[in-house]
Amino acid sequence: MSTVKLVEYDDASPEVRAVYDDIRRVRQTDFINNFWKALANHPTLLERVWAQGKEVMAPGEIDGLTKEMIYIAVSVANACEYCVHSHTDAAVAKGMTEAQYGELLAVIALAQQNNGLASGMQVPVDEVFLKPS
Amino acid sequence: MSTVKLVEYDDASPEVRAVYDDIRRVRQTDFINNFWKALANHPTLLERVWAQGKEVMAPGEIDGLTKEMIYIAVSVANACEYCVHSHTDAAVAKGMTEAQYGELLAVIALAQQNNGLASGMQVPVDEVFLKPS
Amino acid sequence: MSTVKLVEYDDASPEVRAVYDDIRRVRQTDFINNFWKALANHPTLLERVWAQGKEVMAPGEIDGLTKEMIYIAVSVANACEYCVHSHTDAAVAKGMTEAQYGELLAVIALAQQNNGLASGMQVPVDEVFLKPS
Amino acid sequence: MSTVKLVEYDDASPEVRAVYDDIRRVRQTDFINNFWKALANHPTLLERVWAQGKEVMAPGEIDGLTKEMIYIAVSVANACEYCVHSHTDAAVAKGMTEAQYGELLAVIALAQQNNGLASGMQVPVDEVFLKPS
Amino acid sequence: MSTVKLVEYDDASPEVRAVYDDIRRVRQTDFINNFWKALANHPTLLERVWAQGKEVMAPGEIDGLTKEMIYIAVSVANACEYCVHSHTDAAVAKGMTEAQYGELLAVIALAQQNNGLASGMQVPVDEVFLKPS
Amino acid sequence: MSTVKLVEYDDASPEVRAVYDDIRRVRQTDFINNFWKALANHPTLLERVWAQGKEVMAPGEIDGLTKEMIYIAVSVANACEYCVHSHTDAAVAKGMTEAQYGELLAVIALAQQNNGLASGMQVPVDEVFLKPS
Repeated sequence: MSTVKLVEYDDASPEVRAVYDDIRRVRQTDFINNFWKALANHPTLLERVWAQGKEVMAPGEIDGLTKEMIYIAVSVANACEYCVHSHTDAAVAKGMTEAQYGELLAVIALAQQNNGLASGMQVPVDEVFLKPS
Repeated sequence: MSTVKLVEYDDASPEVRAVYDDIRRVRQTDFINNFWKALANHPTLLERVWAQGKEVMAPGEIDGLTKEMIYIAVSVANACEYCVHSHTDAAVAKGMTEAQYGELLAVIALAQQNNGLASGMQVPVDEVFLKPS
Repeated sequence: MSTVKLVEYDDASPEVRAVYDDIRRVRQTDFINNFWKALANHPTLLERVWAQGKEVMAPGEIDGLTKEMIYIAVSVANACEYCVHSHTDAAVAKGMTEAQYGELLAVIALAQQNNGLASGMQVPVDEVFLKPS
Repeated sequence: MSTVKLVEYDDASPEVRAVYDDIRRVRQTDFINNFWKALANHPTLLERVWAQGKEVMAPGEIDGLTKEMIYIAVSVANACEYCVHSHTDAAVAKGMTEAQYGELLAVIALAQQNNGLASGMQVPVDEVFLKPS
Repeated sequence: MSTVKLVEYDDASPEVRAVYDDIRRVRQTDFINNFWKALANHPTLLERVWAQGKEVMAPGEIDGLTKEMIYIAVSVANACEYCVHSHTDAAVAKGMTEAQYGELLAVIALAQQNNGLASGMQVPVDEVFLKPS
Repeated sequence: MSTVKLVEYDDASPEVRAVYDDIRRVRQTDFINNFWKALANHPTLLERVWAQGKEVMAPGEIDGLTKEMIYIAVSVANACEYCVHSHTDAAVAKGMTEAQYGELLAVIALAQQNNGLASGMQVPVDEVFLKPS
């Protein structure tokens, strides 16, 4: 056995239900996705990760959609299948257009390529980039 | 020997100089950073990568600063030291504030963490995320 | 075609059978998981990888369960779906409790996050860490 | 400019000093390493990351040294130079012997190798690993 | 929704059809694999990526099969499931023998392992490797 | 302290010297690079890694230079600075021309880019790639 158990609301402890309720409130939907149901096997972890996510992903100096696109970029580079699916969905829910999605993919593709070129040639960092701000 | 040679303008072929000139024109600065000087050992590659970068990073449906932040996110996940340095510099040049930078780091940190959790638990992708758009 | 063929015991050459027999003996189970059945297409590779694994994963200065947790940590960071599944199973077989699993995930999550922060800020390594031991 | 500024105690705000003081108290040393001095440019991030780290890395169901080894394993797979240096130092401070270090490296090496083999052959996950626990 | 739509020939715009026709001509087969059908949602991206791939993967100073093996190596290290499948298929189509495949896997495995060891020990780069060519 | 000690020949144990002698014999040079001097702190690991490397990197069904290029590709994707330096040096020593190096970089760049696109769009693997060979 190594498949994670998904904790449904009806089987959840009061502390887990409290997090699920907060997710539903913040996201304005009844849907709880599997990431949280899997984390719920470890309630302390669930609470901390949800609290962190709620704070970090809220619109601030960077707007909510841009944050989703940054999140997707990291997840693609890390080949996290689940995260790419769930945050592409979240980005669409926050208004990402097909044209924006195409540009997001193009920037990720360019960065991936140029990461390979810079690492492949072991390009030395320019002096000017190393000056303290 | 495996340190890359950096091709300076004065030593460059006409085709390489043409790219350097275009970089200076587009970026409105005389400064050519080492990435391009290293790529210049392979002029065909230099031309294609610059053309692609010029097109992809230009403001479009996604603005120029957001594109830099997406680029940084990929580069961090790939641990590309050179790219993190050069594109953090570019983001600052395009107006990234200290507060935005703090939020960028927080989103990258969250995504990295949750990528690890989703992969660690091998969370199954929710059916709803797999429905065709 | 690019799906790997899985070599079953009955179809295996004598040299592959010898490895399968040793796997069964060491692990005290008849079960041979797909990793070995796939490697068996390349008998020399199978023999070396099994010999290395048998030696490295045996309890020594680090106990067997801790070794499985280290193995899982690497596999999560590399997004190796197969390896996460098979070694989470192995860790459970070696006695990993649900509470230990929760802490393992929390450490992996923290490291993933802080790897992103350290790479994102390109934090210079402290002088004291660079002193020879 | 893209080199991170390191915030020294004497230049720090009261909220940053409170974190530095807590780091010193918990670790029983005056030394504050650069990771925290860099994070201090973003006090909210500093506070959360330190609080998380203090909680997660404390001995629990998994002992403190084992947690450091798991942390190193993730950091190696992510090629995080800073994190490998600082947490190898931490592991030695928590009593890691040279022999344990050799075995840690051997397990990381094996996992890295086998991650490559499992991904290279795209080995299908065994049915038995997919049964719910 | 976050599942990519696959654009079939019959539903494709003239510009997408032109790329599909060129893929069929160059590869001498009617088969268009899903990578291109997914990219076709973003015609500009489709055109550039196909043009780049056609140029880069053509036999030159490095032969076509070797290029596929290099491509596979990158894809394995990045855990790109789709890419490993499609380029292993391409390598077989270009004549990769079972024995060559076994050696390819062995080299990838060795590099993965030694990457872990070099990063784990943070081996300093030899002076001689840093001399300009 | 977390900087690795480099074991020089004069300070080495007989078993380490035996490996160093074999490296010199096989490579026809007196030079021992730092990777081996660092591994020498763990003689058992040194012996196994050298034996494996000697066997795997020897010309076989794939020639020696191609093997170095595959090794470089993995190391670039893993951002292993040391490995990129040492194996680029090795590839040059085995006859890699500047033109071949340019093509190697172009293939790595393409694969990196397309890995990002395939993972970003979560392209489903074509049925035909999943048929057993």
